[in-house]
Amino acid sequence: MTYMYNTNLDKNHANFTPLSPLSFLQRSAEVYPNRLSIVHGSKKYTWSDTFKRSKQLASALTKKGVGKGDTVAVLCFNTPEIYEAHYGIPMIGAIINTINIRLDVDTISYILEHGEAKVVITDNELSPTIKEVLNKIKTKPLVIDIDDELANHPEGAGENLGSQNYEEFLKTGDENFEWSLPKDEWDSLALNYTSGTTGLPKGVVYHHRGSYLMALGSVTAFSMAMHPTYMWVVPMFHCNGWGNPYTLTALAGTSVCLRYVSAKNLFDAIADHKVTHFGGAPIVLNFIAQATDDEKREYSHKVNVVTAGAPPPAATLEAVQQMGFDVTHVYGLTETYGHVSMCAWQDEWNELSVEEQSKLRSMQGVKFPMMEGLTVMNPETMKKVKNDGEEIGEIMIKGNCVMKGYLKNKEETDKSMSGGWFHSGDLAVMHPNGYVQIKDRSKDIIISGGENVSSVEIENTLYKHPSVLFAAVVAKPDEKWGETPCAFIELKSQDDNVTEKDIISFCKETLAGFKCPKKVIFTELPKTSTGKILKYELREMAKADVS
Amino acid sequence: MTYMYNTNLDKNHANFTPLSPLSFLQRSAEVYPNRLSIVHGSKKYTWSDTFKRSKQLASALTKKGVGKGDTVAVLCFNTPEIYEAHYGIPMIGAIINTINIRLDVDTISYILEHGEAKVVITDNELSPTIKEVLNKIKTKPLVIDIDDELANHPEGAGENLGSQNYEEFLKTGDENFEWSLPKDEWDSLALNYTSGTTGLPKGVVYHHRGSYLMALGSVTAFSMAMHPTYMWVVPMFHCNGWGNPYTLTALAGTSVCLRYVSAKNLFDAIADHKVTHFGGAPIVLNFIAQATDDEKREYSHKVNVVTAGAPPPAATLEAVQQMGFDVTHVYGLTETYGHVSMCAWQDEWNELSVEEQSKLRSMQGVKFPMMEGLTVMNPETMKKVKNDGEEIGEIMIKGNCVMKGYLKNKEETDKSMSGGWFHSGDLAVMHPNGYVQIKDRSKDIIISGGENVSSVEIENTLYKHPSVLFAAVVAKPDEKWGETPCAFIELKSQDDNVTEKDIISFCKETLAGFKCPKKVIFTELPKTSTGKILKYELREMAKADVS
Repeated sequence: MTYMYNTNLDKNHANFTPLSPLSFLQRSAEVYPNRLSIVHGSKKYTWSDTFKRSKQLASALTKKGVGKGDTVAVLCFNTPEIYEAHYGIPMIGAIINTINIRLDVDTISYILEHGEAKVVITDNELSPTIKEVLNKIKTKPLVIDIDDELANHPEGAGENLGSQNYEEFLKTGDENFEWSLPKDEWDSLALNYTSGTTGLPKGVVYHHRGSYLMALGSVTAFSMAMHPTYMWVVPMFHCNGWGNPYTLTALAGTSVCLRYVSAKNLFDAIADHKVTHFGGAPIVLNFIAQATDDEKREYSHKVNVVTAGAPPPAATLEAVQQMGFDVTHVYGLTETYGHVSMCAWQDEWNELSVEEQSKLRSMQGVKFPMMEGLTVMNPETMKKVKNDGEEIGEIMIKGNCVMKGYLKNKEETDKSMSGGWFHSGDLAVMHPNGYVQIKDRSKDIIISGGENVSSVEIENTLYKHPSVLFAAVVAKPDEKWGETPCAFIELKSQDDNVTEKDIISFCKETLAGFKCPKKVIFTELPKTSTGKILKYELREMAKADVS
Repeated sequence: MTYMYNTNLDKNHANFTPLSPLSFLQRSAEVYPNRLSIVHGSKKYTWSDTFKRSKQLASALTKKGVGKGDTVAVLCFNTPEIYEAHYGIPMIGAIINTINIRLDVDTISYILEHGEAKVVITDNELSPTIKEVLNKIKTKPLVIDIDDELANHPEGAGENLGSQNYEEFLKTGDENFEWSLPKDEWDSLALNYTSGTTGLPKGVVYHHRGSYLMALGSVTAFSMAMHPTYMWVVPMFHCNGWGNPYTLTALAGTSVCLRYVSAKNLFDAIADHKVTHFGGAPIVLNFIAQATDDEKREYSHKVNVVTAGAPPPAATLEAVQQMGFDVTHVYGLTETYGHVSMCAWQDEWNELSVEEQSKLRSMQGVKFPMMEGLTVMNPETMKKVKNDGEEIGEIMIKGNCVMKGYLKNKEETDKSMSGGWFHSGDLAVMHPNGYVQIKDRSKDIIISGGENVSSVEIENTLYKHPSVLFAAVVAKPDEKWGETPCAFIELKSQDDNVTEKDIISFCKETLAGFKCPKKVIFTELPKTSTGKILKYELREMAKADVS
């Protein structure tokens, strides 16, 4: 239909620019060139520095033939290099693929091969693992080593595996490099692997539009003023640090890198750098609540904390609130660029007891401002559950911060977004006030120290043990880690004298450390008449176990 | 080119939703149903109310045959109805056309006819003017009258011109109306007329995408936390209140309506409603600085003020800063959805004297976070001027908050956005720190009390006077209004005894009051050898005139 409002009112270069978080960097470098962008050990970078270094990275990659649609993998701690990679890589239309550094050789190898990484930027503390990875994979990527001054090199670590380290590589690039925004805001920006139920990681693809909106939506949702000082506890390899490299650039904030997370490091950063914001798994709140007097430091400002994953215990929440930390509980998945729901505070809750408040604060809550839908549905009928806090359904999500899809996996992509909603896999209720609360996870994910662990992946490993007849893994509540994997094993022969230690060692041979069961219980597994293992009962047993 | 990153990673209903500020209303109504959205006199609405009333408006309009691509004009004061119109009208794909209530009959008639308004929602205080308008225009729109309890009805005003008033009309609508987001975020949302140099208003068209980004960009730029209390001084018919109906909804803030702006009303609202933010022309700062003790009220909180238009005098800035108002100076045009540049504060400025600070604060500054480009160029060569604070060029703007174009005016649209930049028409310099400062306006616009007045339009009127040989109008600095139009007239015969009063009365016959010259100087006009009037000299003369 032609009418006056769509005639001669078209897009042009003046009135349309694809949304990209790269625009934020250009602005912060122009407007606040001398403001601190990143602090790490003795290193202090300004926005002008970060912009120049990102352009150098982009330029250096170009000279190596890297360009639009190529994957650049990054395996490192929270150091300035990974922040710069969030800009330098997409500046040339390449895709940043941050990888969890705690993963095992097989999984990292799988990811590099599946994602077709042309370059791997890696911290040399990881050299023992990465060396094995490089031996294993067929196509050899260009390797750039990060030599970080704050690295602890355990036995065998610290070897540079490529021909240039990161700083040498940067010097080959031009700080005035002519980068460009993507032509289309739907162009891919990042690739993040998530462990699925099958144990085979799936490559979640983000676009520029989503990351741009994630940044501005987070600013709005968290009432973040310009120039926050943000402490990097959340690894930037988790959903690109929940989008915060971009959020902080939009706000010209200062990033305080934390290579290693400990109570002492946390308090030192808060006191020395006047940290105003940080995010982290509930385990980080435990560090704070249980810090010793030696670890604690004096400071007088308020600190805003965003926590995600398993809801923190009420006692921990109370303790940290009383220490001057204002905690917001959020929820999201790798598939949603990180947090897309939050427990938005209601004024009337101020009247409640701290215990009641903590209970409310642990809800997953409501959608972020940039999201379009967050609801709980029966996944079969796609009908909303009642707002009664009782009826269980699956959390469904809709909006511009839902992934493009899984790389090279049409089937899972289509399945995950069937019916016009992203299926989170998390089971929840909807309260009368419209707040969502998770009740269980349909995908059998255990969240241990902020890392997602697939129970199915562990079970698959356990079944490879010659003595195992049946195996089932569930989450066991843990004061320190939030949850840990607890394995229930039914042996082929009761006479077999295999021990808990044997099973754990067996797992360690192939699984990353954080995925190995912390507890193994030998017992006959409860099953339905058709032989289905009753995980619900096992969860109760795991919870009750105090050994 | 096909590669893995653009294969089977397409848009679908789960991962893509057109950007529209309508999404903010749905969210605020869901998450904060009982929070105050609007306060006006004895009326108090919650977000649930505002959502329902907007849906009722949408539904009632639909029943009258209004739909996608239709124009609905709104002529009213800052009352709840115009806020609701910003949602109810676009909810059905119609376009909101707010019109400056201070315009004259001819101009309003022109706008209604050019914009093809099907409906006019109007405050009955304006009935004398609107009645004339309705008599004049050929196609008769549906008229809905706003009966505001706070209206002052001067002689002859207060007559309802349609068959239903706004509340009656709303009752015909369904509060559960099934509205929808636009299919395309480029769909038109608003139509705002701006006076051009020729005096014929041009219809600036906004889209949903731009208004969405304006809202989130403003939140970011102004460090606005959730739930501000905003006082409506800026008329919502000025660039849709600089986008603030949408910004406030994204933040679930409270709007305090101000039907009439006076020092007393300002202070009462600030004290009674704890206003945290407002925006206004510099004249509003004058009201505050010069308020009498009777008008002033006690309050203890800080108030953030955004001011635009002619930069406020340093003395005024100093005075209001000392009264606890934190002033940010912004710049923008109707063509850019309102403010797109701001004088972003730099930490090191805190060390300067208040006078130096005021000088800096009056700069137009740097682009907003959601904008892509703000620069000063030679409009002939499209080359950037030097960053030396000396070389004058035209302010050029680029980004998603630049209009779609002028309605039914391809020629002006193309001209205004030639070379990939929107040509502001304002002459400025670029300082070494990248801050833009306006030096002059190439379009001869006079900003009087926050209203743009075209000098050309006044000149055209003056030339109609039988005694006038040459006429030229320039801005004259004015303590109260910022600027006022000052007319220079060269008479056909020196014996003619036409007076200043005669000329002003002549103008009042056809021009809106705020457009009439406040001062008329009879003199031989300075001209170039080719007969071009030297406006520069006239500006100096106007400035020097103290009569």
